[in-house]
Amino acid sequence: MIERVCVIGAGVIGSLYAGHLAEVAEVSVLTRRQEHADALNRDGLSVTGRSDRHAAVLAACDPDELPDFDLGIFATKADGLEDAAASLEGRFPDATLMTTLNGLGAEDVVRAHGDWQLVSAVTFMSGTKHSDTEVEYILDTATWIGPYEDTPYARVEEIGDLVRRSGLKAETFPDLRPAQWSKLIFNATVNTVAALTGLPHDLHFAALDEPNDLGHLVKGLMDEGKAVAAAAGVELGEDPWEMNVLATRRGSAHYPSMLEDVEAHRRTEIDTITGALVREAHRLGVPVPLHETMERLIKAKEASWQ
Amino acid sequence: MIERVCVIGAGVIGSLYAGHLAEVAEVSVLTRRQEHADALNRDGLSVTGRSDRHAAVLAACDPDELPDFDLGIFATKADGLEDAAASLEGRFPDATLMTTLNGLGAEDVVRAHGDWQLVSAVTFMSGTKHSDTEVEYILDTATWIGPYEDTPYARVEEIGDLVRRSGLKAETFPDLRPAQWSKLIFNATVNTVAALTGLPHDLHFAALDEPNDLGHLVKGLMDEGKAVAAAAGVELGEDPWEMNVLATRRGSAHYPSMLEDVEAHRRTEIDTITGALVREAHRLGVPVPLHETMERLIKAKEASWQ
Repeated sequence: MIERVCVIGAGVIGSLYAGHLAEVAEVSVLTRRQEHADALNRDGLSVTGRSDRHAAVLAACDPDELPDFDLGIFATKADGLEDAAASLEGRFPDATLMTTLNGLGAEDVVRAHGDWQLVSAVTFMSGTKHSDTEVEYILDTATWIGPYEDTPYARVEEIGDLVRRSGLKAETFPDLRPAQWSKLIFNATVNTVAALTGLPHDLHFAALDEPNDLGHLVKGLMDEGKAVAAAAGVELGEDPWEMNVLATRRGSAHYPSMLEDVEAHRRTEIDTITGALVREAHRLGVPVPLHETMERLIKAKEASWQ
Repeated sequence: MIERVCVIGAGVIGSLYAGHLAEVAEVSVLTRRQEHADALNRDGLSVTGRSDRHAAVLAACDPDELPDFDLGIFATKADGLEDAAASLEGRFPDATLMTTLNGLGAEDVVRAHGDWQLVSAVTFMSGTKHSDTEVEYILDTATWIGPYEDTPYARVEEIGDLVRRSGLKAETFPDLRPAQWSKLIFNATVNTVAALTGLPHDLHFAALDEPNDLGHLVKGLMDEGKAVAAAAGVELGEDPWEMNVLATRRGSAHYPSMLEDVEAHRRTEIDTITGALVREAHRLGVPVPLHETMERLIKAKEASWQ
């Protein structure tokens, strides 16, 4: 039974989990900043947009102050995962910990700090944080959940049930790798193209009419990604190109997080998204000149505001 | 003898030619806007930076008001060339006309409007316009000049002399194509990389230490360009990569014009620079996936502010 959930990291994704799961569980939140914890303890957490919620949560930025929990959900950005996992070392041995980060290898980072039961997830939902205590729920796409190592699938289904009962979408898979790879390829493509062009994820991404149209680049990046997945022995779940066409036809013109990072002159997640794909490609000997190009351009863009 | 020069288009490059050539010739200027001509007629043209000049020029935006001239220098942007050449149709039959535009094929555009004696040039000098009547001379690199069709080389040398006597740098070549191609490859690379990353042309462009370093992309783009030049039967003059390394070591961190265009949300010269290279590559059957990528990203960037 999962009655107590701790959300680790309260950015957009963490806030969406916390705000919804508080309907069906006791929710605590581990934040990085004390004033963020204070604000959440004082005001609770509001969700607007596709949901309308107001949740009381118990927040702390010191893991000593966290109550015990059954399920911990890592929702930090990639560069915050190592510190977050280290801060839980030696604690909550009976908890199941679930990673929801972009890229590959988040489970290994957590495993290095303890022998918790681990669950893998990728999420496609998105939103916008308006303040430390208010998040707007924008894309109500699913979280995909699967076991890691020898975690029983029944545990995964239990978590999927909980997430669905909270009002979010979730799907469970006996093997998550096909979904993780689909998302990685999708993300590495859409995030970098958006960040470099300034375009939200709109119809340009699926345009193939003229030789100069952006869809050719998007397709080329996805084809490179598919070749890496094939070399890794992974049969993809959804086809990233079809995900792209469907998402752009919806007309939501979603702002990928890397575009937001670039506009705010923040360091991007390029190392964990495109970087993960390129490292796998190099390990497997698959050429990925287009992804290398995107990675170098984004790294140089980061350098331009330093 | 060249005693009267008309500069067609008074952007940065045109203003630099007009401001210097007025020392050694009578200079007229054909502008696109009446108020630009009025300002030049009233205030003259000031050059600051690497030169310190104040020149009286006779400016007009109607070719009927231009005095006769021996040498006309096209210094419009690519998208202004067709109109400018058309406006001279049937006039100044004894003049030599020199094109200085980026890309390939400017001479053909001019030729379609008359049988003037034509001279080809590419220029590496750069500057910043501070107003319609003031230009700062920044990079004092040379203009390279060569014959077009059956123009005698002696005429080219005469123009080279004139430009040098005016205080600008110039070199003449019996065949300009190697230089044009070197510049095209250099420009297609440096302009697009700068425009997408926000970096001026600085040391990042020559960095090769880490796999993610931008120099690898710059080199890859230049290698593609060299393969196209080789397929076109052109033996390059200066090696574009060496031009790149030298220019970045100089430390001037020049702002390529495409970066300025992108920052001002102006339409770029992508069609005449990278577009020219990609069209030649397709005609010759040479793969240029990196240049196609840059072209699609810049076109999409232009679409993002429309």
